[in-house]
Amino acid sequence: MEKLIPFNKPHFTGNETVYIKNAVESGKISGDGIYTKKCHEFFESLMEFNKSLLTTSCTDALEMAAILIGIEPGDEVIIPSYTFVSTANAFILRGAIIRFIDSREDQPGMDERSIESLINEKTKAIVPVHYAGVACDMDLIMDIAERHDLYVIEDAAQAIDSFFTYRNGKKARLGSIGHLAAFSFHETKNIISGEGGLLVVNDQKFATRAEIIREKGTNRSAFFRGEVDKYGWVDKGSSFLPSDIIAAFLYAQLENLESIQNKRLEIWNRYDHSFHHMKGFESIFSKPIIPNYATNNGHMYYLICRCKSIRKRLLTHLKRRNILAVFHYLSLHNSKFYRAKHDGRELPNADKFSDCLVRLPFYPDLTREQQNKVIDAIGDFVNEFH
Amino acid sequence: MEKLIPFNKPHFTGNETVYIKNAVESGKISGDGIYTKKCHEFFESLMEFNKSLLTTSCTDALEMAAILIGIEPGDEVIIPSYTFVSTANAFILRGAIIRFIDSREDQPGMDERSIESLINEKTKAIVPVHYAGVACDMDLIMDIAERHDLYVIEDAAQAIDSFFTYRNGKKARLGSIGHLAAFSFHETKNIISGEGGLLVVNDQKFATRAEIIREKGTNRSAFFRGEVDKYGWVDKGSSFLPSDIIAAFLYAQLENLESIQNKRLEIWNRYDHSFHHMKGFESIFSKPIIPNYATNNGHMYYLICRCKSIRKRLLTHLKRRNILAVFHYLSLHNSKFYRAKHDGRELPNADKFSDCLVRLPFYPDLTREQQNKVIDAIGDFVNEFH
Repeated sequence: MEKLIPFNKPHFTGNETVYIKNAVESGKISGDGIYTKKCHEFFESLMEFNKSLLTTSCTDALEMAAILIGIEPGDEVIIPSYTFVSTANAFILRGAIIRFIDSREDQPGMDERSIESLINEKTKAIVPVHYAGVACDMDLIMDIAERHDLYVIEDAAQAIDSFFTYRNGKKARLGSIGHLAAFSFHETKNIISGEGGLLVVNDQKFATRAEIIREKGTNRSAFFRGEVDKYGWVDKGSSFLPSDIIAAFLYAQLENLESIQNKRLEIWNRYDHSFHHMKGFESIFSKPIIPNYATNNGHMYYLICRCKSIRKRLLTHLKRRNILAVFHYLSLHNSKFYRAKHDGRELPNADKFSDCLVRLPFYPDLTREQQNKVIDAIGDFVNEFH
Repeated sequence: MEKLIPFNKPHFTGNETVYIKNAVESGKISGDGIYTKKCHEFFESLMEFNKSLLTTSCTDALEMAAILIGIEPGDEVIIPSYTFVSTANAFILRGAIIRFIDSREDQPGMDERSIESLINEKTKAIVPVHYAGVACDMDLIMDIAERHDLYVIEDAAQAIDSFFTYRNGKKARLGSIGHLAAFSFHETKNIISGEGGLLVVNDQKFATRAEIIREKGTNRSAFFRGEVDKYGWVDKGSSFLPSDIIAAFLYAQLENLESIQNKRLEIWNRYDHSFHHMKGFESIFSKPIIPNYATNNGHMYYLICRCKSIRKRLLTHLKRRNILAVFHYLSLHNSKFYRAKHDGRELPNADKFSDCLVRLPFYPDLTREQQNKVIDAIGDFVNEFH
């Protein structure tokens, strides 16, 4: 039997365990050790992010954001329905009501034009999710937020090394635009540490409190910088900081960001180019769309099947060839947990992407030969279909 | 200048990075990989715990416990004042009011006999903290809980491999007694993974929901066991599971539990024996007390100074000799965050331990020579004092 082509395979640069050993030898492997500092510096200096704080997951970064903007029971938050559960959970844990928004017709990202109709006096924040690393229309979102005095928290879980170009031509890194932003380093992401995340604090007014909340509600960080003469319990908080073992792993990845990104983009472009030229492809599938204002960070390659039954047949077809393609989110407004709490609006595009989107095998170590097998298998599917 | 004797130094067994490499090569380093399973098995089979779930920290395990027992705003929880902030924060994040309880006069553990006076119709749980790994009187606490229909959540952060003997002679592992229990693998603990924790679910009724809450509110765990045919969003939750990198590290430690514990107990006994015979010691200090119903897991060796000024002098004296001894918690009822919310009761013993307790250097790699230096320095302090 031929070897399975998995959907994802964590890529290692080789230095991960070397750095973990260094961390171990430094005598400190709890949070905020030498590699956490190196990672923070990478994000703040090389990526020019504002205050950057490693967390144990993107979920935790979103939870910090929910605490920082002061979500109280009954507050409303606008979130796409087609997203990971954590986008919603982080706010639900603080008592928020979620107002789910549909995807755009042409792509899974949120339909920015229907945000405004959901805003009322209870609305506290908008959480754009940059699906597949492709920017939401941040001109539109930031403008709405400003006019209604709302916070914007970017769920940039998949959006490392991706950009948005404003109407005025200025280019900004995703995660640097909203008041706060959350990234993921889960093993399925471009840059990984198994589990892991990052909170970016763009609105300076949250900077001090973000440190405190991350350190279990203590002002320990300020103490270590010599800003206070003893530290104690000053706020609510949790243990959001990862072990320096995780940071050591992550740092080895960050050092190789460029080569990882080059590999991913090459794979992305080969998929896209092949499907562009594949006869009959467009009558069954559509390809990802990258709007003019967005860049492509090579996070994911997906197909949108014309209907659910085609997707089912495709997944079976690929599985028979030992290729593991997978669907993605299930609309959250239709979930067992939230269905009865949802306000009843139909969100047809979110449902469409729940039913019809397929993610293809995608990882830096995917060989040309393997990728050809995937492309050929899809080519055969298209031929058999017609 | 002589080399510093630190308060803590993470101990490594040698296999940590080997196992991390294995995890990496397994192709899965996110949560619940092969080493997480090995750790769970260790806790459930060898330690005979009920359902055991690794978490990113003891804080997170406590937060899971607070969600599981259904803490709602206004519920009251009884917690010692002399504890780490996380014991309280986990419940405060869910809206609980904390009723702080004093320490015992003779040791930092909570004064079990004053629990009952704090119980009212709002009380939901008691959280005994097994300070320094020394059991609280669980006969008393479980009896009170049963009579008042309260949950008991053991904060067993420091209590790995420690036991309680019931009045009837039965011996039970700490963490196996309350409805739920939380352990820590922070680098200062006996068994470490930098940051890390464990939730033990003793009350079977919480077992399924614990898995769901840990997996961001999805029934993914049941799905992977084939119990449901697809998984989705069924509850609130967060990302409480650690990367398998952390579990790999932890497993290397667990395999060496016995040798680590032997080393720690040897160090503990040497301190205790030396101070027992030290002339003049008892007029300035007292030593830790291990009640008959408790065992000693060699987590920590502390001295209680007769007053705060003696502690200050001792710390300075030791620092001059390049020995880093440290104090521990500051009473939470007196903290900047909770002072105004506290009900005003004086908790003099908690304050005494805040002011007078000193933890001595304590880690498996502390050499005899180093330990002698610490003991000699304290001997000299005692002599100079008289």
